[in-house]
Amino acid sequence: MKFVCYKDTIIKALNSVVKGVASKTTMPILEGILIQTNEGEIKLTTYDLEIGIEYTMKCDIKEHGSTVVNATMFTEIIRKLPDSEINISVNENNLLIIECEGALYKLATMNPDEFPDLPKIEVENSIELEQGTLKNMIRKTIFAVSSDENRPIFSGCLFEIKDNKLNVVAIDGFRLALRKINLPVAVNDFKAVIPAKTLNEVIKILEDSFEMIKIGISKNQALFEMENCKIVTRILEGEFLNYNSVIPDNWQTRVRVNRTDLQNSFERISLISSSAIEKEKKYPVRVTVDIGKMIISCTNQTGDAKEEVFITTEGKYLEAGFNPKYFLDCLKAIDDEEIFVEFGSNISPCLVKSVENNDYVYMILPIRLKNE
Amino acid sequence: MKFVCYKDTIIKALNSVVKGVASKTTMPILEGILIQTNEGEIKLTTYDLEIGIEYTMKCDIKEHGSTVVNATMFTEIIRKLPDSEINISVNENNLLIIECEGALYKLATMNPDEFPDLPKIEVENSIELEQGTLKNMIRKTIFAVSSDENRPIFSGCLFEIKDNKLNVVAIDGFRLALRKINLPVAVNDFKAVIPAKTLNEVIKILEDSFEMIKIGISKNQALFEMENCKIVTRILEGEFLNYNSVIPDNWQTRVRVNRTDLQNSFERISLISSSAIEKEKKYPVRVTVDIGKMIISCTNQTGDAKEEVFITTEGKYLEAGFNPKYFLDCLKAIDDEEIFVEFGSNISPCLVKSVENNDYVYMILPIRLKNE
Repeated sequence: MKFVCYKDTIIKALNSVVKGVASKTTMPILEGILIQTNEGEIKLTTYDLEIGIEYTMKCDIKEHGSTVVNATMFTEIIRKLPDSEINISVNENNLLIIECEGALYKLATMNPDEFPDLPKIEVENSIELEQGTLKNMIRKTIFAVSSDENRPIFSGCLFEIKDNKLNVVAIDGFRLALRKINLPVAVNDFKAVIPAKTLNEVIKILEDSFEMIKIGISKNQALFEMENCKIVTRILEGEFLNYNSVIPDNWQTRVRVNRTDLQNSFERISLISSSAIEKEKKYPVRVTVDIGKMIISCTNQTGDAKEEVFITTEGKYLEAGFNPKYFLDCLKAIDDEEIFVEFGSNISPCLVKSVENNDYVYMILPIRLKNE
Repeated sequence: MKFVCYKDTIIKALNSVVKGVASKTTMPILEGILIQTNEGEIKLTTYDLEIGIEYTMKCDIKEHGSTVVNATMFTEIIRKLPDSEINISVNENNLLIIECEGALYKLATMNPDEFPDLPKIEVENSIELEQGTLKNMIRKTIFAVSSDENRPIFSGCLFEIKDNKLNVVAIDGFRLALRKINLPVAVNDFKAVIPAKTLNEVIKILEDSFEMIKIGISKNQALFEMENCKIVTRILEGEFLNYNSVIPDNWQTRVRVNRTDLQNSFERISLISSSAIEKEKKYPVRVTVDIGKMIISCTNQTGDAKEEVFITTEGKYLEAGFNPKYFLDCLKAIDDEEIFVEFGSNISPCLVKSVENNDYVYMILPIRLKNE
């Protein structure tokens, strides 16, 4: 194997595939990158048995072949080379040779035949959308995924295609995040729950661009396909919550508020509420909605805190307890400046929505206040 | 106690004094900031029994008094307040009240009488220099300080005033860093070894400016005095090495090289040399100096590496072993682009100097190569 490439091209490829390298594994081959030559291009593959990533890049092939090299060491060396032409080859002792200006590195390799095959995917359903849109949809929901290992189905985001809409939903039992878009072309209804672990890697590879990405779903796998890069992942088994049935469709108290003001107040009050020695969940903050103002307060052994936020109020006076972290997570994910917060009673979920868009909804369950 | 201040003023003060807050202590009072009012100003003090920091800031005093409040909580809340006027007071229940726009915080306080006094310093000798200069002198030497607890005297930097020069020296048994300047006015000769821990905090407070700082030395303490801020620290006891006697004054091989080129080569080769399972010290890199080129190489179970750097050579052919980390630390601290590296034999120390300036010298001891 022998090829010539430029540093910036191969670094872009490596930055994408390293996301699929196994970090803690008893199989050293999974810590490697499989390098294979084709006509006028090389293919780099990583696979940690959950996520597989393939990246194809054009380069000048001098001699065909394949090898596996430790991903971290290879990437670190390439990253530190000068911005120049790099010669990469495998010698007769099966060492990978990297040559670039005055630098010459020889790295141990592994047998490419031992690298596990990525699962073959027979795509049954697929959609196409812009990379920037998908990145935004994941970013706005993934924080609400459950970390409870007893309910694995909620450790992923539901991708639901229904009536030519894509809904991405995450839920953890205390809150829900829903982001929706209309699809430009008619597609079959289908759904799949994709592990948050995969999506976390996918958003690092996605660009904020109008370039397209295709999401294909088979029985057990999902495939993300971009121009040079393919990502394969298992999908989660089980029945996701019928989320529509839990989102309330009316309110008794509605607040219109500046998102940044509300976020700053929750951030400050979290300093006090999360300083309690006992679990923060047990020390909710008290949210009081009155005419023209929302008061957020809490008291514990560290001190007292009270935040007054100017709002426009519709409906009834309300007092309820909330975990400020859940508010903060969704407020940070919202780009719009003016939002509605809709409350039912002090034991029913509250919704956070944009004043202008209806492409996302966050739902947060209240926590019973101690003196209730 | 009651005063009014602006967020940006008090944040600047807090950012300086928090460096003196104890992090792991059984005395909660040392995790606090002592706040005391004076005429038209407040004084903030922190003291972890090694480093004490005092900061005085002008503000509008409404009522005199003093208190101690947890430094982290107080600073975090102030940091997150809007950029506005802040009212701070202590109420009848000894709670510290922070009021700013819609935010109202009440924090538990501690008894200011229990806050330990900073050591009184009777300055015997002192010098004045620009903050930016002192910052540069510390930054260029502190990395060579020893972490060996059995030789506490080398865990600090020597400040030596001699013949109207200031020399700052750090040494750890394997390398030495020396930075020197001429003092503009005549001062008495004196010396003191200041703990690296203190200097690390001092450089965070120093600004890259022409504003002056005064360093005063008493028998056991040093005092850094800036316009609003005073830092008190103990000095280390014991005899520092007579460093002049160990720095060689001639060479057998001298190399003139571009610092960035040499640094990049050492950075890449460190990836291989430090990947060895055994201690990196035992796997030195081999430095070979020939006519017009320096070759840096190493071999271990990860692979082989060879770096060729263009140089101008004077004197003899040389081959010696070095820990690349020691080269990297000093090359990173140097700003000049053209440097000399001066070698004696393969068992005598090498010197790194600027081609143009003589205000610093680094000395690195070689390591015996395995096949020697």
